[in-house]
Amino acid sequence: MTTTNALLINQANAPITKGTIERRAVRAKDVRIAISYSGICHSDVHQARSEWGNDIFPMVPGHEIIGEVIEVGDQVTKFKIGQTVGVGVFVDSCRECDACKSNLESYCEKGPVGSYNGYAYNGDVEYGGYSKEIVTDEHFVLHIADGVNLAECAPLLCAGITVYSPLKHWKAGPGKKVAILGMGGLGHLAVKFAVALGAEVTVLGHSLSKKEDALSFGAVDYRSTSDQQTFVDLKNKFDFILNTTSADIPVDSLLGMIKLDGALVFVGLPVDSQSFNVFSVTGNRRSISGSQVGGQIEVQEMLDFAAKHKIGASVEMLDATDPATIDAAWNRVVAADVRYRFVIDASTI
Amino acid sequence: MTTTNALLINQANAPITKGTIERRAVRAKDVRIAISYSGICHSDVHQARSEWGNDIFPMVPGHEIIGEVIEVGDQVTKFKIGQTVGVGVFVDSCRECDACKSNLESYCEKGPVGSYNGYAYNGDVEYGGYSKEIVTDEHFVLHIADGVNLAECAPLLCAGITVYSPLKHWKAGPGKKVAILGMGGLGHLAVKFAVALGAEVTVLGHSLSKKEDALSFGAVDYRSTSDQQTFVDLKNKFDFILNTTSADIPVDSLLGMIKLDGALVFVGLPVDSQSFNVFSVTGNRRSISGSQVGGQIEVQEMLDFAAKHKIGASVEMLDATDPATIDAAWNRVVAADVRYRFVIDASTI
Repeated sequence: MTTTNALLINQANAPITKGTIERRAVRAKDVRIAISYSGICHSDVHQARSEWGNDIFPMVPGHEIIGEVIEVGDQVTKFKIGQTVGVGVFVDSCRECDACKSNLESYCEKGPVGSYNGYAYNGDVEYGGYSKEIVTDEHFVLHIADGVNLAECAPLLCAGITVYSPLKHWKAGPGKKVAILGMGGLGHLAVKFAVALGAEVTVLGHSLSKKEDALSFGAVDYRSTSDQQTFVDLKNKFDFILNTTSADIPVDSLLGMIKLDGALVFVGLPVDSQSFNVFSVTGNRRSISGSQVGGQIEVQEMLDFAAKHKIGASVEMLDATDPATIDAAWNRVVAADVRYRFVIDASTI
Repeated sequence: MTTTNALLINQANAPITKGTIERRAVRAKDVRIAISYSGICHSDVHQARSEWGNDIFPMVPGHEIIGEVIEVGDQVTKFKIGQTVGVGVFVDSCRECDACKSNLESYCEKGPVGSYNGYAYNGDVEYGGYSKEIVTDEHFVLHIADGVNLAECAPLLCAGITVYSPLKHWKAGPGKKVAILGMGGLGHLAVKFAVALGAEVTVLGHSLSKKEDALSFGAVDYRSTSDQQTFVDLKNKFDFILNTTSADIPVDSLLGMIKLDGALVFVGLPVDSQSFNVFSVTGNRRSISGSQVGGQIEVQEMLDFAAKHKIGASVEMLDATDPATIDAAWNRVVAADVRYRFVIDASTI
């Protein structure tokens, strides 16, 4: 066991404090990582504020982790000391179910083990990336290519794969018209990835305030969902709409913009149920679907694709010397007041 | 023009009366058909009772039509006088849009022309199969194989293709676990087709009253959706659930029975919006979708498949000598009191 610094939430809605946690001794297949950057995900806030239930306190959030390998177990084959690596949303899965065997560990039938606010299969509590070190099985560690901006890479480990996986699954690419609903942390990466994949990308925002950014990321159009004309002009236009917002959305109006065999896919997670008219899906044989993260092979593919296409998150760096800085950043995440993702400099933890 | 007998609804909710209508003179690509059987579809009742809006009176319902070719236009190549043929839900489409070019005329972007209660592109009102003759472009006429029971075949033209098309699209077949929700006119054919396609079929009914029939059609299991244990026992079990009912359904509970990448597909058309929790689709990357009928090539494929596998509707024959018999049958359709489809003997019209 090693003791390491961490940012702790001791109970729901409590302010973030500094403290220490124990990391397990490195097992045969484990990698010990000195964390350099840790992204902030909206789900960190949801969980630390007990908005999803099933929370375990004290909690160390963080599942967008970049660092350097500082120790490897004696059966580790993929990593060496000194390499730059990443850890994402999950740190274990059963490895035996159909989903795991299909390299879709995020859909593990036993339930994958979250990087924080969850229990390992042996009952240990998992602590996340808002800390200086983490110890993880190499199956859930990713290679980071040389030359990558590491701070901008960190958010790819959750936000990046969350949007890349459905873009690939629903075949965004040349000849496809894709709309990204909402351009926050998830959405801005969705625009960058969809453009790099070769799709024609339109952004649908509540206001037009992010239009310039969207066009600079490669979108060809930006429309406001507050303007009913948007739904008229873009009727039956898209192969695929990716909903990256957590707000209630006008499902039928959005479906009306989707062409034959197209899909409206949720990666944002609104708390309340959404409703739809059945004629909206029988017309054009449309689908409403959802997606969560991606399997380890796909996460690595996404990281390599991002490195090749120079895709990173647009980030605002945070110094955690005063942990109240992180509380304030969380409030800005909730207020959608960040362009576009916060990243903690872990050397300040 | 020729005058032919028909069953007419003169205004919304009016009793059915006997009368005559004019059929157009046969054009170059037209086929004139002496109708022998006409199936009753729940949508006939919805439209005659103005439940869907946009109704045109007087109305002659019917889009499950079997008959014999009695005249062909001089450019007709597919049919000869004396052949047994069918006509289904649509009698024209634009033939130029992407959907039409993909042999998916039912999703024609201009809007396909319904066999009744719709206007031809030239503005003429279309009258359906509750009549003794119909004149239709050969593109929308289907071959019926020798030896087929014609009365049992009629309902395949709407109910049959409505369930066959999604079963094929979502790849029901060997190794797949399929559930059919509701076993009425659509559902009983869905069971027969899904079994013939090689899927393992479970029927989900409100009560267990049709269990024996379902097993005789080849289903391996029949469960009641009134019993909450059903949703526990069958959690994550199905690749595909086909909803053939028009009632409100417990969408989240049904989604919970669907495995990774599976789909809940609506062909029944509930009037009210349905709601779902977004976690129900992000979990297991499930989809909610819908489907309507099928294109002409697929309708022919379905008829040939049905002939080969001896699939027909289980029917109750109706004599229209007294048209009140048809009104009474409609009331039984609404009450779901038919096993499983009514067919009118057109010689009595």
